[in-house]
Amino acid sequence: MKAHVWVMPKRTVLDPQGQTIQHALSGLGYASVKDVRQGKFFVLNVEGLSRDEAQKQIEHISKEVLTNPVIEESRFEIVE
Amino acid sequence: MKAHVWVMPKRTVLDPQGQTIQHALSGLGYASVKDVRQGKFFVLNVEGLSRDEAQKQIEHISKEVLTNPVIEESRFEIVE
Repeated sequence: MKAHVWVMPKRTVLDPQGQTIQHALSGLGYASVKDVRQGKFFVLNVEGLSRDEAQKQIEHISKEVLTNPVIEESRFEIVE
Repeated sequence: MKAHVWVMPKRTVLDPQGQTIQHALSGLGYASVKDVRQGKFFVLNVEGLSRDEAQKQIEHISKEVLTNPVIEESRFEIVE
């Protein structure tokens, strides 16, 4: 089974990487890009679990291992 | 308009971050997670362009700015 996990800086948290990219794009002529947020994306391969168990484990992993809940938020999806 | 861009290490390229996470998860009791690949995820806010122009610009940005084509591959999606 495959799971996708997205981890993004919270809306209320500054994202200096995203800001740097936005400035760079502006300098390269892409002035229409007004805002960039950069996050992390994970593809996990899970084996030997039912869909329900996988759902639970991936939820734990997303929230408690891959995300720093002080500054980040996450979502996940079981894809196949 | 909003665009999502995913940048992942190519399948043929080692992903040491992903491997480290997979090992850590295994040590934490998530032995069912057999493989982890870590990539980047960007949310771009684009203003003042038609959908077609945005599509073209985001394609350029994904391929030529956000991705290192030697070791990474990317895909993008205009979401709204």
